[in-house]
Amino acid sequence: MERKSEKIAILGAGSWGTALAMVLADNGHEVRLWGHNTVQIDEINQHHTNKKYLPEISLPATIIGYDSLQEALDGIKTVIMAVPTKAIREVIRKMKVITSEPLVIVHVSKGIEPDSLLRISEMIEEEMPEGYLESVVVLSGPSHAEEVSLRHPTTVTVSSKKMEEAEKIQDLFINNNFRVYTNSDLIGVEIGGALKNIIALAAGISDGLGYGDNAKAALITRGLAEIARLGVKMGASPLTFSGLTGIGDLIVTCTSVHSRNWRAGNLLGKGQNLEEVLENMGMVVEGVRTTKAAYQLAEKYGVNMPITNALYNILFNNVNPKDAVDGLMSREKTHEMEDLADVLGGRI
Amino acid sequence: MERKSEKIAILGAGSWGTALAMVLADNGHEVRLWGHNTVQIDEINQHHTNKKYLPEISLPATIIGYDSLQEALDGIKTVIMAVPTKAIREVIRKMKVITSEPLVIVHVSKGIEPDSLLRISEMIEEEMPEGYLESVVVLSGPSHAEEVSLRHPTTVTVSSKKMEEAEKIQDLFINNNFRVYTNSDLIGVEIGGALKNIIALAAGISDGLGYGDNAKAALITRGLAEIARLGVKMGASPLTFSGLTGIGDLIVTCTSVHSRNWRAGNLLGKGQNLEEVLENMGMVVEGVRTTKAAYQLAEKYGVNMPITNALYNILFNNVNPKDAVDGLMSREKTHEMEDLADVLGGRI
Repeated sequence: MERKSEKIAILGAGSWGTALAMVLADNGHEVRLWGHNTVQIDEINQHHTNKKYLPEISLPATIIGYDSLQEALDGIKTVIMAVPTKAIREVIRKMKVITSEPLVIVHVSKGIEPDSLLRISEMIEEEMPEGYLESVVVLSGPSHAEEVSLRHPTTVTVSSKKMEEAEKIQDLFINNNFRVYTNSDLIGVEIGGALKNIIALAAGISDGLGYGDNAKAALITRGLAEIARLGVKMGASPLTFSGLTGIGDLIVTCTSVHSRNWRAGNLLGKGQNLEEVLENMGMVVEGVRTTKAAYQLAEKYGVNMPITNALYNILFNNVNPKDAVDGLMSREKTHEMEDLADVLGGRI
Repeated sequence: MERKSEKIAILGAGSWGTALAMVLADNGHEVRLWGHNTVQIDEINQHHTNKKYLPEISLPATIIGYDSLQEALDGIKTVIMAVPTKAIREVIRKMKVITSEPLVIVHVSKGIEPDSLLRISEMIEEEMPEGYLESVVVLSGPSHAEEVSLRHPTTVTVSSKKMEEAEKIQDLFINNNFRVYTNSDLIGVEIGGALKNIIALAAGISDGLGYGDNAKAALITRGLAEIARLGVKMGASPLTFSGLTGIGDLIVTCTSVHSRNWRAGNLLGKGQNLEEVLENMGMVVEGVRTTKAAYQLAEKYGVNMPITNALYNILFNNVNPKDAVDGLMSREKTHEMEDLADVLGGRI
């Protein structure tokens, strides 16, 4: 494929930002990788490594590290936002006093903001003055950063209100190892990516309780059904939840011991409380915030979400995990299709 | 729950037949477990164990082993058919000269008969004279036998043309560890259970090639989409493929190293050919037969099934697994929803 080289800034030099920088560099683009840790940025520029996040990897020399946001954004039209969800507003506030021309912002994070209940594209739109924003694109899917950095086959989905902008992002990233699909259902893509972390927590709890693959498969299946029920009420297409950003991402997250959310759930299942878990993990567990947001969304939209409720009670009301999971199992016998038909709002 | 004790015969004393016998015995039923190996049946009756299939388990004393089919079926109205798919016709032929009253036959096997392209319930109907068959019920879902025998939480689905018979079977089996849902979509339940073995083979190949979780999640997601495409053309509801017998069973099969089909795929990915794999496994690999049947079904119904085709070429046309999987990845860039919309026959 003929491809024009472009200048792109990636904000956030963690494992995912760095892996995406490698994909873009492989495609011949000029990549600026911004992070606030000067030592790490020096390492990227001098040794072409980022050992804290991708220990085994040599970075292409065309990835240049920046510790100045001003310099990283100079003359840039396309920004990949790869900072943690809760840092997004802060970074946007810094960006908007620097940039002068309308940006395409591609976010690659997963979450829903508690209380505001905004999706990430909505948060970005709210924070960025209108004239400064060309469009927001989301890139999401089943994608461990480590595997992408090893150039193992990976598939992701891009979406946007302006699909022509999503298609441009598809063209930037796509190559033989990294397949990019478009999907015009922005709400579904963002909701699926965010809410799968709840189910990953639940799957970890089930494993921590010593239950087996049968229980975990049931939780994942019924968890996806309740995510889809909520998503459809919020305006998503039910089909998106059967796609890469739905089932696909859920499978990767729930069955990998590398998943942070699964690990947090596992510790909860083994008897630790939320404070102990967060202390032991020593890092952000996105699913905890998302559980709160999803609980609030279920109330707002009047959607029945038994797994989310059970998890909320475990996390915030000290309900015993075994009692909560056993409670899910001992619901009255039921007809599977009633539950599933809900997903399509009765359209079977 | 008040429950009337019933007399039930289970044909097939492998791991799944034995685990289901335990569920029924836990529910207070009188269970006859038939197998043709006299030594094994003696072990069940004298030691209440079935060490070859469930090494760690003590069986309830109310499970009685039978090596005579005639005695096992005497006075029985409900039969659980737990023999391998390719033995079903033979066992039915023996049954029909023994039984005198119409039977409810519950099958718990997964497959499609190559060449005839019949689902298992259709095979049973074809083989059993009409007056001898009250109804056929299928019981399917994400359920490793070992975990059921340990009374770990498990969910399954029952379906039948006569849903009142499926509900009776739900009542027989349901308890706090073993949740049984009904689903009136018999075709979808049978197709999902059968065809997931193809995707398990493909997932094993991907792992055998050394690809990671990203590639496997992509294969599972797109594999489910093509199964659903075929199923809908055959008359199934698309929703069933998002349920326990669809995604649920697929997750258990594709992510467990205990899965026979995954293991066969893994050996193929590591470079063995089909003959070597079957020799090394030393047992039936249902997904191999099913791949042939699905390939034939895709032709018959004119459905695009790229993963099934790739697998067929690996198994029967000596195509190199790496070339076949890389070929799947390097298809033209595409819009995810077009593919998914197909599943609903365009109904989004």
